[in-house]
Amino acid sequence: MSGTTDLSRLFEPRSIALVGASDRAGSIGGYALQNLAEHSTFTGDLYLINPRREAIGERRCWPSVAALPATPDVALIAVPASEVMAALHECADRGVAFAIVFTSGFGETGDEGKALEAEMRAIVARSGMRIYGPNCPGLTNVNRRLGLTFSPAFKLDLLAGPIGIATQGGGLGRCLLQSMQRGIGVGLWSSAGNEVDLEVSDFIDHMAGAGDVGVIATLLEGVRDGRKFLRAVRHAAAQRKPVVALKIGRSEYGRRAAQSHTASIAGSAEVNSAVLRQMGVVEVDDIDELIDTAALFARARPGPNEKVAVVCSSGGTAALSADMIGSAGLELATLSPATLAELAKHLPPFVSAANPLDTSGEILNKPEALDATLRAVAEDPAVGLVLYPIPLEYGPVTKGVAESIVRVQRETGTPIVAVWMSDRLGAGYDALVAGGLMPMRSVGKAVKAMSRWVWHGQWRARADAVPAPEPLWLLAGGGAALPDVSTEPLAKHWLATHGMAVPTHRVARTQDEAQAAARELGWPVVAKVVSAEVAHKSDAGGVAVGVRDAEELARVWERIHADVTAAVPHARIDGLLIEAMAPPGGVETLVGVHTDDSFGPVISVGLGGIHVEVLKDVSRRLLPITLDDARDMLRELRGFPILQGIRGRAPRDIEAIARTLVAVSDLVSAHRGAVAELEINPLWVGAVGQGVLALDALAIRAGDAP
Amino acid sequence: MSGTTDLSRLFEPRSIALVGASDRAGSIGGYALQNLAEHSTFTGDLYLINPRREAIGERRCWPSVAALPATPDVALIAVPASEVMAALHECADRGVAFAIVFTSGFGETGDEGKALEAEMRAIVARSGMRIYGPNCPGLTNVNRRLGLTFSPAFKLDLLAGPIGIATQGGGLGRCLLQSMQRGIGVGLWSSAGNEVDLEVSDFIDHMAGAGDVGVIATLLEGVRDGRKFLRAVRHAAAQRKPVVALKIGRSEYGRRAAQSHTASIAGSAEVNSAVLRQMGVVEVDDIDELIDTAALFARARPGPNEKVAVVCSSGGTAALSADMIGSAGLELATLSPATLAELAKHLPPFVSAANPLDTSGEILNKPEALDATLRAVAEDPAVGLVLYPIPLEYGPVTKGVAESIVRVQRETGTPIVAVWMSDRLGAGYDALVAGGLMPMRSVGKAVKAMSRWVWHGQWRARADAVPAPEPLWLLAGGGAALPDVSTEPLAKHWLATHGMAVPTHRVARTQDEAQAAARELGWPVVAKVVSAEVAHKSDAGGVAVGVRDAEELARVWERIHADVTAAVPHARIDGLLIEAMAPPGGVETLVGVHTDDSFGPVISVGLGGIHVEVLKDVSRRLLPITLDDARDMLRELRGFPILQGIRGRAPRDIEAIARTLVAVSDLVSAHRGAVAELEINPLWVGAVGQGVLALDALAIRAGDAP
Repeated sequence: MSGTTDLSRLFEPRSIALVGASDRAGSIGGYALQNLAEHSTFTGDLYLINPRREAIGERRCWPSVAALPATPDVALIAVPASEVMAALHECADRGVAFAIVFTSGFGETGDEGKALEAEMRAIVARSGMRIYGPNCPGLTNVNRRLGLTFSPAFKLDLLAGPIGIATQGGGLGRCLLQSMQRGIGVGLWSSAGNEVDLEVSDFIDHMAGAGDVGVIATLLEGVRDGRKFLRAVRHAAAQRKPVVALKIGRSEYGRRAAQSHTASIAGSAEVNSAVLRQMGVVEVDDIDELIDTAALFARARPGPNEKVAVVCSSGGTAALSADMIGSAGLELATLSPATLAELAKHLPPFVSAANPLDTSGEILNKPEALDATLRAVAEDPAVGLVLYPIPLEYGPVTKGVAESIVRVQRETGTPIVAVWMSDRLGAGYDALVAGGLMPMRSVGKAVKAMSRWVWHGQWRARADAVPAPEPLWLLAGGGAALPDVSTEPLAKHWLATHGMAVPTHRVARTQDEAQAAARELGWPVVAKVVSAEVAHKSDAGGVAVGVRDAEELARVWERIHADVTAAVPHARIDGLLIEAMAPPGGVETLVGVHTDDSFGPVISVGLGGIHVEVLKDVSRRLLPITLDDARDMLRELRGFPILQGIRGRAPRDIEAIARTLVAVSDLVSAHRGAVAELEINPLWVGAVGQGVLALDALAIRAGDAP
Repeated sequence: MSGTTDLSRLFEPRSIALVGASDRAGSIGGYALQNLAEHSTFTGDLYLINPRREAIGERRCWPSVAALPATPDVALIAVPASEVMAALHECADRGVAFAIVFTSGFGETGDEGKALEAEMRAIVARSGMRIYGPNCPGLTNVNRRLGLTFSPAFKLDLLAGPIGIATQGGGLGRCLLQSMQRGIGVGLWSSAGNEVDLEVSDFIDHMAGAGDVGVIATLLEGVRDGRKFLRAVRHAAAQRKPVVALKIGRSEYGRRAAQSHTASIAGSAEVNSAVLRQMGVVEVDDIDELIDTAALFARARPGPNEKVAVVCSSGGTAALSADMIGSAGLELATLSPATLAELAKHLPPFVSAANPLDTSGEILNKPEALDATLRAVAEDPAVGLVLYPIPLEYGPVTKGVAESIVRVQRETGTPIVAVWMSDRLGAGYDALVAGGLMPMRSVGKAVKAMSRWVWHGQWRARADAVPAPEPLWLLAGGGAALPDVSTEPLAKHWLATHGMAVPTHRVARTQDEAQAAARELGWPVVAKVVSAEVAHKSDAGGVAVGVRDAEELARVWERIHADVTAAVPHARIDGLLIEAMAPPGGVETLVGVHTDDSFGPVISVGLGGIHVEVLKDVSRRLLPITLDDARDMLRELRGFPILQGIRGRAPRDIEAIARTLVAVSDLVSAHRGAVAELEINPLWVGAVGQGVLALDALAIRAGDAP
């Protein structure tokens, strides 16, 4: 797509044309006019376009965009579907920078609509005008008080703030926007519907650079353009703006539904999650968690090692909270002696000063004691975050608790996360909302938001210490061409010339050469068919392990030739690969690179056998990776203790696996665009100091059939 | 504890004494009196006890319980802590059946308070009077409109219904009660605070028999008496009343906090969860899920195989819902051709009739179409449950949707689970609440409740088909005495005489006997030390595997004697066990029985090696188990595909493992109370038809040190 990539005139236009302006009650053009004229504070030029009217109210109408005295920055298209294409052409001809098409009845209705959307893309391509929509509620700019939207609810979207929301659909986006009701400000919401041109990634990118947005929340039904998405979230990370994302498509049902709804790539849930994590994007599991988490980031930013304290006045609630904190892998802070002494001054004698702190109900009617105990905990140097669950609505009592939280929060930088657990709201809830503390609705949801906050602090510290390399997928141009890697010995040779250890081996074209090779390498040996046409050697009967002597090798020679010819009738057999056996007692791992449709080359590692196949215990990263990344990948495996050595077995050479992962990363990076797939399976791993050996290797060049 | 176990007079007393009746504003005795006199519809005798007053208002005061003209069923104790013991003694002497002690300042305050609680238990033991409390809010009977509580909120607890809540603490219990605000009726709430006598299990048991309770929700901070708990939940299951439970103590933090709060046993989270599942108790993860799930059971009961449909008017929401349904392992129903045809009549032409159904916004202002589409889906024979998420508040539009849901729900038995996703409430939300549909607060929470509902339907069907045997822990008396099982050959002999396969073996007291045994069994053999004092034979150097010939056996004989003597200096060695090697190619599993502090004998099974140790992949059941249970246990293992045969390996003899589990269950049951621990590790598993072999066995008698 051509056209500007700077969206600031879309979000802050100097002039706007409303095509299809109306005063008809309930019409899209009517609502859009009300939003602009009555509910926005827009001071630029507003042109109403309606060839059938001279004026609407006091405002003059123009017959067309062409007739306008000046070119507007943004045109809002609120005409019936049958008139949309003409309006867009007119806007494009006039040089309008951005057109927002509210009207529905395009791609979502079938092939005819899809053809019209293709025409819209052609308009973008020829004119440079960017199109937002169609089939969308428009753009809601709460911070600038500008409603480029026909939503009659815009007049209620009043709470400005640092959260920017980028969604595709309107329903879920407005759901997020309505979290304002819990006291969290949402400054910007983009929702570009069918996304013929501008899409979620464009808005993430814009918000990354927008001064009034501090945290970006996004709902991804699919990723249309993986490169654009990667650039956008890297931009946000560079601007130190956390991105919180809910990605639909984790299950097969979800993938199908999301694809049919948005026509974008759903992709592998595992790769998506790995990419989000790697980019520092905080992935959440539900809509409410998106806003809970964004709100916490909007309140404070985490350091590298945040610990938690719990304050409440119910023993059961304290126990529940501690339980969930432990299950989430968070750490309870150890309160300092000074804090404990301060607490003891204000608590009843039978209450023990501790974390979690159950103050008992005794201090609920003593505001000073409430404040003092909460302040002491929040100000303890070990505490990074305070969880304050309120289990029930109890009129003036819970109002007092809420007011205490709001008071103490004003004095401390440590975020106090209040939870309003009851379905009965009340003055205490209202006080939290008014205080901007956005009460969470359950302890579990609060703990999830806190975990994500703590995780992002760790990610941030790591990203600051070791800047992440640019993903391969984003680099322009291709890398070096690939040599011939069509057979196992060729692939191994290629790996070996780039520093990776492979077993000593010889390619034998005749049986005599095979016998000589085996004698040279020493019995027992491994024998494998060499053929570019046999990808799955074992399945084709092309492998023999532990061949003990000349007699057995002779039999194996014949058998492999016969079996492979039977399995793959016309395969050209270039002889057998004769290899030294790996030393006994190793652990098998699997290292692979494949090319994800959305995000490009992804490296995977797992333990061999059942770990990958049955238990799906695989760790993934976009290429390239650093040595630190490689070590992290291994530590993430559930089976990592096996590498560390269990039941008295010697620890495996973990560093050698990590170095291999980096070597693979470097190699694929050097041949960027040329490697479709690379698999080392198994990668034999010896004890510490013994290193690793690529026992089998398979490489597929881009463009070749797998 | 002696005294009655029938709590009906506690819940429906004919007469009540309020000890410490008062008209002082804000006092416990004052609130309790208001609740009884003004906010209850109690028509029995109410006696006010206050030696310092002649009357309170129009009501006469009595100087003591002893002075009353008749013995009350229930005494409410609302006097200061210093006067509580005297009041309890007086009530017990008078023959009062139940005393509810509101007053705090006992066990929760330290050792002095704990001593007073011991005295309360002595009163129960000598008199048979049951004590409820102390340190508790009392008993809230909404269905009978009787507040045996000092809570000033009782006057707001107005929505009667079929849910009974049993909690220990007051804070979380009231949180649950306040879910009435979402339109769900809670008929009974018991909260017995420090539980010196009556405890959560007693109330579950009572509610299981109470005609006005259909579903029991409970919060377990600990389980004081596992037998009582098992009896109570079995009683509920027999009465076909689902029990929904949140158990605190899943993490180490939680276990510590719960134990310090309630002084009851927290136990192993894994055993707790396994026991709950086995008993059909629906375990949930948070407070809100407790009530969400209970409410769904209160609305309808699941069949054995319920499938789900989604109806909404937002494409993104439909995709999100389908995604979560898939991730939860639920199944989307396939709509019948008749349903699809009916839908097509009412939907716009560009909307495809499908499940999930995105009606589009077009029908939102057409009540007949809203009703007709929802009715068609709900009445489809394949649909057991409809999820209807409403992403946002949109004034009259969402009110219309909610009213349609309420209307259609009145016509159909298929539960329609509405989700109010927005933080902005409104007329639509109010309509759902008023219609008794208890809107869920997020799609994720709704899907969790639905999953649990569907699971319970499967459990119920299974329990009806194969009645679960009485847990061993509940059986009176002990079983047969155990023979001497102090060494491996003795333990194996015992297993073998009860039908379990063990390797052919001989016990050799001399080296000559060992050589003869090996010749007889055939080389190679396994040699293991025989000693009642060496529990961990491998660690002590007491095991040699694959001993190939006489020469090696001679060396092994000497080495084992030397190593074991070095490791366990005074161990008496009774010779070596000489065994045939297991056939090659087996899979190793582990079968164990241990005695849980709360719930008695628990059987466990897992795959050998890393599966149990590193991956914690273990399946557990209370004894005894049936063959069906045993099969389920194996299927629950994440590593189950390994038993089914992966990578072309032959399937293992799963039936033989299952039969072994049942044989172990039968054996431990026969020797009930005599077996502290039994471990078969490894249990070698051959291919189908090859059976299993107990390669090692260890049994520990109750009372012996492990």
